[in-house]
Amino acid sequence: MRFICHQKQLIQSISIVQKAVSSKTTLPILKGIYIEAINNTIKLIATDLEIGIEHITEANTYTEGSVVVDARLFSEIIKKLPSSEVEISLQDSNQLCIKCENSEFNILSYNPQDFPELPVVEENYSCEISQDLFKNMIRQTVFATSQDESRPVLTGALLEIEDGTLNMVALDGYRLALRRGKIQSHLDNKVIIPAKTLNEINRIANNEEEENINITLTKNHGLFIIGNTKLISRLLEGEFINYKQILPGEYRSKVKANTRDLLSSIERASLLAKEGKNNLVKFIVQDHSMIITSNSELGKVHEEIHVELEGEDIEIAFNSKYFIEALKIVEDDEIYLEFTTNLSPGILKPATSQNYTYLVLPVRLSAD
Amino acid sequence: MRFICHQKQLIQSISIVQKAVSSKTTLPILKGIYIEAINNTIKLIATDLEIGIEHITEANTYTEGSVVVDARLFSEIIKKLPSSEVEISLQDSNQLCIKCENSEFNILSYNPQDFPELPVVEENYSCEISQDLFKNMIRQTVFATSQDESRPVLTGALLEIEDGTLNMVALDGYRLALRRGKIQSHLDNKVIIPAKTLNEINRIANNEEEENINITLTKNHGLFIIGNTKLISRLLEGEFINYKQILPGEYRSKVKANTRDLLSSIERASLLAKEGKNNLVKFIVQDHSMIITSNSELGKVHEEIHVELEGEDIEIAFNSKYFIEALKIVEDDEIYLEFTTNLSPGILKPATSQNYTYLVLPVRLSAD
Repeated sequence: MRFICHQKQLIQSISIVQKAVSSKTTLPILKGIYIEAINNTIKLIATDLEIGIEHITEANTYTEGSVVVDARLFSEIIKKLPSSEVEISLQDSNQLCIKCENSEFNILSYNPQDFPELPVVEENYSCEISQDLFKNMIRQTVFATSQDESRPVLTGALLEIEDGTLNMVALDGYRLALRRGKIQSHLDNKVIIPAKTLNEINRIANNEEEENINITLTKNHGLFIIGNTKLISRLLEGEFINYKQILPGEYRSKVKANTRDLLSSIERASLLAKEGKNNLVKFIVQDHSMIITSNSELGKVHEEIHVELEGEDIEIAFNSKYFIEALKIVEDDEIYLEFTTNLSPGILKPATSQNYTYLVLPVRLSAD
Repeated sequence: MRFICHQKQLIQSISIVQKAVSSKTTLPILKGIYIEAINNTIKLIATDLEIGIEHITEANTYTEGSVVVDARLFSEIIKKLPSSEVEISLQDSNQLCIKCENSEFNILSYNPQDFPELPVVEENYSCEISQDLFKNMIRQTVFATSQDESRPVLTGALLEIEDGTLNMVALDGYRLALRRGKIQSHLDNKVIIPAKTLNEINRIANNEEEENINITLTKNHGLFIIGNTKLISRLLEGEFINYKQILPGEYRSKVKANTRDLLSSIERASLLAKEGKNNLVKFIVQDHSMIITSNSELGKVHEEIHVELEGEDIEIAFNSKYFIEALKIVEDDEIYLEFTTNLSPGILKPATSQNYTYLVLPVRLSAD
């Protein structure tokens, strides 16, 4: 195997696949990147057996062939090379030779035969969605997935395709995030994608790229094609919670607030809310004002913002963390909060769009 | 106590003194910042009993007085407030009230009587040096101080004032950095300043500020006045090593190299040099070339750069870390390396200036 490729291009390829490299593994070859030179392209693959990422880029290939090389070492070397053409060739005794200007590295390589093949996903029924929209959907839901491995389905997000609409849903038992978006699809489907996979797609996809993401979902795998990159992920097995049942259909109080003002006030209030006490902040809404308070042994805080209230006054408490995370990803300048009682979930929605719904369970207020 | 000060100004003051706050301490009050309002200024002080930092800024003071408040909480609160006027007042029962626009915090405060006073340093014999130069001297030496607490004097840098010249010297048993600079002083002096103090001065001093740093050195303390900031530090006790004895007076090989090329090549070579083997890289200088090699079980690397050699060929090995750190802080485009034998120290100097000398001990090459 021998090819020449520019250092900048190699770095880009490596950075795309590298996140799929196993950090902890008993199989040393999974710490490697598979590189194949064929027909004036090179293909880089990395996998941790859960996610596999494959990236193709142009190169001048002189001898076709493949090799596996330690991902961390290879990436460190390429990064430190000058911005110039890099010649990579496989020598006798499995030494990989990397030459660039006045530098020459010879490093150990693994046998490419030992590298696991990525699962084959038939691209028969695939659908398409804009990169920008899909990134947004991920960003607005994935933070609400559960970190708790004891309920595996909640560590991923539901992708539900119904009549050309994609619903992405994540929930962790305390809050739920639902984002809707248009998708080009002729088939309805319902799968659970691991949060890690969605984060990787978000990293690889490009806001400015006009090309769509091509998605193929089979029983066990999801295939995401983003330009020259393929990402193949296992799906999570199990039944997702019937989230539609959880969303309340009505409310008694509807509050319109400025997103930034509300976020800043809750962030400040949370400085005195302590982890041990569920980061408790209290909302008191009456007339045109929303008062946000919190207190702990460190002291107390009192915040007031102007709001528009429709319906009944309300006094309700939440874990500030759940509100802060959601307010940070809402793009609208104004939001609606909907409440029924101080024991039932609160709903947050952007003021000008129907495509996002965020639900948070309240914290019961002790009589103080 | 009651005063009004702009949020931006408060943040700046807090950030200047905050680094002196004890992170680990059995005395809770040392986790605090002392604030004194007097005569339309506020003074903030923090100390860990090794270093004390005092900063004065303007404010509208309505009631004079002082308070001590938890540094971390106070800083978090002020940072999160809007960019606006902040009113701070001490209430009954030691509550500190912080008001800004629609926010009101009431937090616990400590008794200012319990806050330790900073040592009094008589400013009789002080000297002056430009902020820019002093920062440079610190940056070019302090990285060579020892991390090893078992030899306390080496955890600081020597400041030696002789005939209007300041020598700043740091060494750790493997390398030595010496920076010379002009200072306005009528007295000769010799003290050892803790590395932490020098790092704080480097942080506080400003490259663009024309005002000099005013330095007063007593037997046990150093006082550094930088604009509205005073930094008082304990000095390290003990005798500094007679560093002049260590610097070789002659050489057999003198090599002129491009600073960036040499740094890049050593950085690449060090990717294959392993910690366990002293990060060993080998230099082979002959004719107009310097070859830099390194190898480990991961592979081997061969780098070559163009140099000008005056004197004998040489083959010598070093811990790459010591060269990388020094080459990063040299400002000249070209440097000289001076060698005598491969068992005696190597010297690095900027090509166009006599004000910096860096010495590194070689690593003995095993017969391989």
